[in-house]
Amino acid sequence: MEYQFAKRMSNVKASAIREILKATSDPKMISFAGGNPSAEAFPVEEIEKISADILTNEPISVLQYGITEGDQELIQAATHFFNRHEQVMKADDQMIITSGSQQIMEFAAKILCNEGDVVICENPSFLGALNAFKSLGAVLRGIEYKNGQLDLEALKQALQMEPKPKFMYLIPNFQNPTGMTMSLEVRKEILKLAKDNGVLILEDNPYGDLRFEGEAIPSIKSLDEDGLVIYAASLSKIIAPGMRVACCIAPKAIIQKMTVAKQASDVHSNLWAQKVMARYLQNYDMDAHIERIRMIYKQKCHLMLDEMKKHFHPDVQYTIPTGGMFIWVTLPESVDMLTFVKKALEKNVAVVPGNAFLDDDTKECHSFRMNYSTPTNEKIKEGVKILGEITYEMLSISS
Amino acid sequence: MEYQFAKRMSNVKASAIREILKATSDPKMISFAGGNPSAEAFPVEEIEKISADILTNEPISVLQYGITEGDQELIQAATHFFNRHEQVMKADDQMIITSGSQQIMEFAAKILCNEGDVVICENPSFLGALNAFKSLGAVLRGIEYKNGQLDLEALKQALQMEPKPKFMYLIPNFQNPTGMTMSLEVRKEILKLAKDNGVLILEDNPYGDLRFEGEAIPSIKSLDEDGLVIYAASLSKIIAPGMRVACCIAPKAIIQKMTVAKQASDVHSNLWAQKVMARYLQNYDMDAHIERIRMIYKQKCHLMLDEMKKHFHPDVQYTIPTGGMFIWVTLPESVDMLTFVKKALEKNVAVVPGNAFLDDDTKECHSFRMNYSTPTNEKIKEGVKILGEITYEMLSISS
Repeated sequence: MEYQFAKRMSNVKASAIREILKATSDPKMISFAGGNPSAEAFPVEEIEKISADILTNEPISVLQYGITEGDQELIQAATHFFNRHEQVMKADDQMIITSGSQQIMEFAAKILCNEGDVVICENPSFLGALNAFKSLGAVLRGIEYKNGQLDLEALKQALQMEPKPKFMYLIPNFQNPTGMTMSLEVRKEILKLAKDNGVLILEDNPYGDLRFEGEAIPSIKSLDEDGLVIYAASLSKIIAPGMRVACCIAPKAIIQKMTVAKQASDVHSNLWAQKVMARYLQNYDMDAHIERIRMIYKQKCHLMLDEMKKHFHPDVQYTIPTGGMFIWVTLPESVDMLTFVKKALEKNVAVVPGNAFLDDDTKECHSFRMNYSTPTNEKIKEGVKILGEITYEMLSISS
Repeated sequence: MEYQFAKRMSNVKASAIREILKATSDPKMISFAGGNPSAEAFPVEEIEKISADILTNEPISVLQYGITEGDQELIQAATHFFNRHEQVMKADDQMIITSGSQQIMEFAAKILCNEGDVVICENPSFLGALNAFKSLGAVLRGIEYKNGQLDLEALKQALQMEPKPKFMYLIPNFQNPTGMTMSLEVRKEILKLAKDNGVLILEDNPYGDLRFEGEAIPSIKSLDEDGLVIYAASLSKIIAPGMRVACCIAPKAIIQKMTVAKQASDVHSNLWAQKVMARYLQNYDMDAHIERIRMIYKQKCHLMLDEMKKHFHPDVQYTIPTGGMFIWVTLPESVDMLTFVKKALEKNVAVVPGNAFLDDDTKECHSFRMNYSTPTNEKIKEGVKILGEITYEMLSISS
């Protein structure tokens, strides 16, 4: 039988990262390619204790069918948690619990985009989100960076192009893959542009709590008084990703449509995970826990940056993150990035080729992404040294 | 802000059942409207024990990110389990673990159907699946029943109509909502029609193991040697639905496409649930457990049927299920079904109006669905008596 697949899937490839990660199952491989939180950061004992308590005292509450919007206890606890430093949940807003924030990206495109509708994204941006949009027939319009911030002139133009975009997908804090953070001024300006043009914003904030330097910058959601922002908040990076729990906060009409989409998609998210997360948020000191994660990531990030400074050819550029999990490395134009990545893989070091994160992955790209949250300190030292050797090897050939 | 939603969502309404179930949160209400497995049937102590063991000895395996296809241990255990009485997994097949079988329905439509493509379904059929297909722009073509079996003549015609259907969605065992079971002859004939017309079958079998009378009939998947069948097997009805774990078995090319869809949808399913299910399948006697559920359902089904025989007006017809969870009740044409359902709700008994399960819910319908797996024996007696009184009341008015 020859299978005929839907057009919408033809632009969605199996993730480049995934393919690289397959190679990294080799225990010899040093992987800077993943985006996994550090396993040291999981509150293992607390989860064990909460889980035992739930399964002993109220097992049916997590084994029977639940409601689509999510566990009411988690919605309350998460609302309190995400509102603790700034008001992301407004009077007209509602929350839905999803199976990871990947599902928020899919639902946003599913409820908002007709086939061929345009979504504006940062260029580069989070591959999983771009694939979700494409898998529902949306077309990407990428906006480049200029001097470390999104190019607002290019954004203005993109907003005025036909067809009018359905929403802008943005990761303002410690962006994936660049590790860069949007300034308050740029956030305000983008919100104004959204309002002037009647275009929604999908603000993805999985890393916001992972700031290890500098002051927190208000989310675009907290600045919005006009129902323009769909906010994706995740518990994957601050509790545990394998549980697949995220929270979407948005105006009621949007959450109601997402609820219908979720009902048709997976009915509701795993209840054990929701209940465990609710009790963890209620009964433990989240800010102390987050502070512990921040210290782990700060140390790992600085170690990687120090080693890069020591070993990388001085013509190689990279971002200096103040939070999150990623460093974005840019090679001189004379060096072919894909050849570099291939050489690294041959020497058992995995990084992700930057073109994987572009609105169009056939565009020329001299960057790649490095992750510091997953590897051990030893692997960071060992892997960066090897990458450094390749920078010298390739730059001496090219010059 | 006025929100413009995607066209694909405009045909998907918040589930009629859901709306009725909201009314049933009233503790006075006797609900025959749900489709929940009986909570008595959950292997609570075993799940508690397995979970504690996993969270103590290998917590990171369920807290870190996992792979999209699913936990390898579960895939092995589930393959062995679903193949134990018949061969559903063929040499060219593969399995993907999904977040409930609702997600299989969504992925099937997502990877196979372009906007406007036709899906053939039984009429009536499972509302959740119909909504999943519609939410991806598919158009339903419903096939009626005739003398207790699907009308094959009508199916033949539907297969030849333009545009050619993408797949047939079928629930051969103890169908939702009718409780009816497809004969072996009809299964064979449908498979032949699928082959002759080059149209896939999506076989949904959530209730197959819940047979409490008669002999098991081979699944269409087990009869297929041509890669024509996508098989949805669920652990919700035989372990626990709140865990959201199902297994899709289909030819490799289809599972690979589903994997790309799942990556863009929720990355992977909750790992705790997958690992607990794997260990339960490996270490406990599933067939003894299933036998226990069957006995519970057999008793409840017979009780409901006995009470219906005692209390319902003799002109009311209903199916006699040999497994599953549902009875399909048909009122004489003189009685307005929606008025009946409303009267029942006023007297605190909830059933689901049958038109909710049709390809087009504005069609005339004299049937409603009753569930016997969720209510207690006492509630079954009490509720059926009330419904019986309404049948007499409305039939004496109409005659």
